[in-house]
Amino acid sequence: MYPFTEGSYAPRNGWYVAAFRNEIGDDLLSRWILNQPVVMYRKDDGTAVAVEGRCPHRHFPLGASKRVGDAIQCGYHGITFDAAGKCTFVPSQEKIPGVYTIRSYPLVERGLWAWIWPGDPAKADESLIPTLAEIGFEIEGIYAKPFYAHDVDGRYQLLNDNLLDLSHLGYLHGTSIGTTDDAATPEERDVTDRRVSSRRVMRNTPPTPAVRAKHAIEGLVDRVSGMEFYFPGFHAGIGEVRLPEGHERAGELINFSRVWHAVTPAKTFTTNYFFAMGSTDRQGVDDMVEYLKPVLAEDMFATVEIEKIVQTLDDLPPELMLKSDGTAVLGRRILQRMMDREREEARLARSTP
Amino acid sequence: MYPFTEGSYAPRNGWYVAAFRNEIGDDLLSRWILNQPVVMYRKDDGTAVAVEGRCPHRHFPLGASKRVGDAIQCGYHGITFDAAGKCTFVPSQEKIPGVYTIRSYPLVERGLWAWIWPGDPAKADESLIPTLAEIGFEIEGIYAKPFYAHDVDGRYQLLNDNLLDLSHLGYLHGTSIGTTDDAATPEERDVTDRRVSSRRVMRNTPPTPAVRAKHAIEGLVDRVSGMEFYFPGFHAGIGEVRLPEGHERAGELINFSRVWHAVTPAKTFTTNYFFAMGSTDRQGVDDMVEYLKPVLAEDMFATVEIEKIVQTLDDLPPELMLKSDGTAVLGRRILQRMMDREREEARLARSTP
Amino acid sequence: MYPFTEGSYAPRNGWYVAAFRNEIGDDLLSRWILNQPVVMYRKDDGTAVAVEGRCPHRHFPLGASKRVGDAIQCGYHGITFDAAGKCTFVPSQEKIPGVYTIRSYPLVERGLWAWIWPGDPAKADESLIPTLAEIGFEIEGIYAKPFYAHDVDGRYQLLNDNLLDLSHLGYLHGTSIGTTDDAATPEERDVTDRRVSSRRVMRNTPPTPAVRAKHAIEGLVDRVSGMEFYFPGFHAGIGEVRLPEGHERAGELINFSRVWHAVTPAKTFTTNYFFAMGSTDRQGVDDMVEYLKPVLAEDMFATVEIEKIVQTLDDLPPELMLKSDGTAVLGRRILQRMMDREREEARLARSTP
Repeated sequence: MYPFTEGSYAPRNGWYVAAFRNEIGDDLLSRWILNQPVVMYRKDDGTAVAVEGRCPHRHFPLGASKRVGDAIQCGYHGITFDAAGKCTFVPSQEKIPGVYTIRSYPLVERGLWAWIWPGDPAKADESLIPTLAEIGFEIEGIYAKPFYAHDVDGRYQLLNDNLLDLSHLGYLHGTSIGTTDDAATPEERDVTDRRVSSRRVMRNTPPTPAVRAKHAIEGLVDRVSGMEFYFPGFHAGIGEVRLPEGHERAGELINFSRVWHAVTPAKTFTTNYFFAMGSTDRQGVDDMVEYLKPVLAEDMFATVEIEKIVQTLDDLPPELMLKSDGTAVLGRRILQRMMDREREEARLARSTP
Repeated sequence: MYPFTEGSYAPRNGWYVAAFRNEIGDDLLSRWILNQPVVMYRKDDGTAVAVEGRCPHRHFPLGASKRVGDAIQCGYHGITFDAAGKCTFVPSQEKIPGVYTIRSYPLVERGLWAWIWPGDPAKADESLIPTLAEIGFEIEGIYAKPFYAHDVDGRYQLLNDNLLDLSHLGYLHGTSIGTTDDAATPEERDVTDRRVSSRRVMRNTPPTPAVRAKHAIEGLVDRVSGMEFYFPGFHAGIGEVRLPEGHERAGELINFSRVWHAVTPAKTFTTNYFFAMGSTDRQGVDDMVEYLKPVLAEDMFATVEIEKIVQTLDDLPPELMLKSDGTAVLGRRILQRMMDREREEARLARSTP
Repeated sequence: MYPFTEGSYAPRNGWYVAAFRNEIGDDLLSRWILNQPVVMYRKDDGTAVAVEGRCPHRHFPLGASKRVGDAIQCGYHGITFDAAGKCTFVPSQEKIPGVYTIRSYPLVERGLWAWIWPGDPAKADESLIPTLAEIGFEIEGIYAKPFYAHDVDGRYQLLNDNLLDLSHLGYLHGTSIGTTDDAATPEERDVTDRRVSSRRVMRNTPPTPAVRAKHAIEGLVDRVSGMEFYFPGFHAGIGEVRLPEGHERAGELINFSRVWHAVTPAKTFTTNYFFAMGSTDRQGVDDMVEYLKPVLAEDMFATVEIEKIVQTLDDLPPELMLKSDGTAVLGRRILQRMMDREREEARLARSTP
């Protein structure tokens, strides 16, 4: 499936953000994740859990069902499953068939997020979750806040592509968070087995409209803009603005922010998109909630419109790549490799007696 | 097609409810039945008729056309068909081509319903329609009333499944017409070549919230709850509440009702659903029209939500069956057998010179 | 694809109306044409141009982008294309890759319309566009006016079929622009390599309701009604009403109109439909804008409803043709032949080294 090979949808063995932690409470929270209905809730002891959202009896949505203690009672025929996915009650018979279970997903709360592992639970290694240190969440004095959770009508990779190529900042977001220097400046790239990092350092560059609206800046600034893509679906961004060489307070940090985008496949052509922000400037973060709404709407507009074109065209021509697509191409290649490996493992598992 | 074998949609040789009789009048009534557009109306002599709803000339909907006497004049080019489906007028030429006919469906009015036979008319045996006696329509003093006709966004078998397993009453309808004893009580089953009957007899059981709301009952009651599924799409239900042993008026019938659900495939993933009710308690029936609206809405909610899950999941896992699914499994098996037989007959007909 | 052979959608080598000329201005106008997104605008020198509406970089809609001088700057990453489709600016690199182009479509303004050639530009011969003389646009004193541009939810050939068989006038439009004599009168047909012409001459016939509403006519009239179908998607209609033989002013023209319908495939199951009208009676034309709205709505209703039936039926039976379908059958055959020829040419082009 575009932009991956035929039959490739999304890696399953990886940590995705399933929800902001503050979305998970006593009530059942339903969400599609990698084409599976999932239900999340917080047990009486406060632990957040995620289980399959489909009753195996008649496919009724467990997210539209009823919580009974720490268990979910199917809203259709009353079959009940505990938080580990084990059936604990069948209203019509004493004996509970051994096959009566639903999937229980590894779910880890870290930072603002609840991370889910949709694949083989035996492989769910928590050390693969981005650490709070590496995503800038432990910076002294940082104030982090979940902004928006959206269900976007477009396939997830369009949002990853968006975040893997910040040359769009000065165009899609030219009236707010970017300038034409974002695209004009070459990026530095760094790859590890956990993430791809890209960064642009702009010196003596105009401030973005957003920064200009906030600070009484005359003249040019130095800017750093970067994004780190933790596979398979988390992007940690950095933005820094300093007074440039020559200024009397040269080098002074006048604006600093961290942004966190989580991109989680929902259904084949829809995506769960979580955006959060942090800064040492608490007021600055609170002010951005409204300011960034239209900016995120621009990204979602691009995603939805491209999805329409991709779905309508019979023969979608291959994209014409530019040098600035290097990071996005790399990101796609890494996800493709994860999917290829999973397919190969599944093939081997089937052929092994 | 789930839950039937690949390529199996619905039996065609069978009587389905096409409409409540009181829906059919002078005006043209359009309805999709088994993936065919059908038009119904009442001729000047009062006879209800059903014909194909598609003009064979240019596929224009005859239900959006004009009645001229007992005939339908296509709203596009004026080609006219009588109530038997014979073309009686072509505006642009004198000679009417012999092929110019539309299907006319056997349509029988019985009880509250107009029954249609979508399959081979030569096989349309009226004795296969449920008799009024067997569905409880001739009980002395019974007052029967059509309640609602709905177009449900889900495949028809989901509604049949619903009605073939009343263990859902205490859960999906736990605040109205069921208690947990419905599921906890084993059912008696009886099968003939016309119908599957299932029934639960509950003694010293709590009354349902609906009964409690109506009658000032203290303590327990005896209840009978049952459903008879007349193939391929009619369900006649019975509900009885009596004062239990030990009560001074033990055995007295305090509540009695008949419900009639007709489930008729509309399009592949939609269903015509007709609900009616009867009782010797006339006021009781009239009172239920509003009371049962949210109850029926619960059944339709289950249907629509399951349909969504079934359509979204790439690989729908097989259902995990319980003993309480025996009647539903039997009902499905009988419909599957009807479809298999029709397919085999069609195959033979094609291969016979 | 119905009503053409499997895999046949629409001829590409032909002039279609892309827009009314007065729709094209400084702003970018987006439109789907033969399953391709197209953008139209007027350059600073006034020339109307049409280019591909999809950025080849990331499939972003260029119609939702920004005009910069005579060029379009993609709203996503700023890549810029001139009116000839040549890339003139890539924000992130100096060198512009040679492959960076978008299609530029031949676009010719003639009469009220801008005509586009979606196929091979080398074959775009302007002499194939209907001349203003032949469509009645140069009649002395004629006042021509674009009425409506619609996006219709039905495949384009349903609208062509509608216009190729005016026997529907007295039925679909029986309360306005037709009488039963339209269908009852045989048509004269004339075919050239550019168009099929059909015409009905009705003598001593009732005036249409539209004419009766406008003129105080008592008794019968003579009418001429005709349509010329210029391949692949333009219909020029003529309507004349005269006082009949025996009248004291016999032969006097009391009503005269030209109508122009342009039918342009949008997506597979949707159509761009442009309706315009002309007459020497200026006031008469202006009066018709409101009057004809419900009439056109009837045609679109037929199209949309037939589309639904065609899409829903698993096995669409072949249409039962009448003599009055001769022109429509001919029109379809000519379009099919155009498509067959294009397919054959493409096959030859692929096999030629």
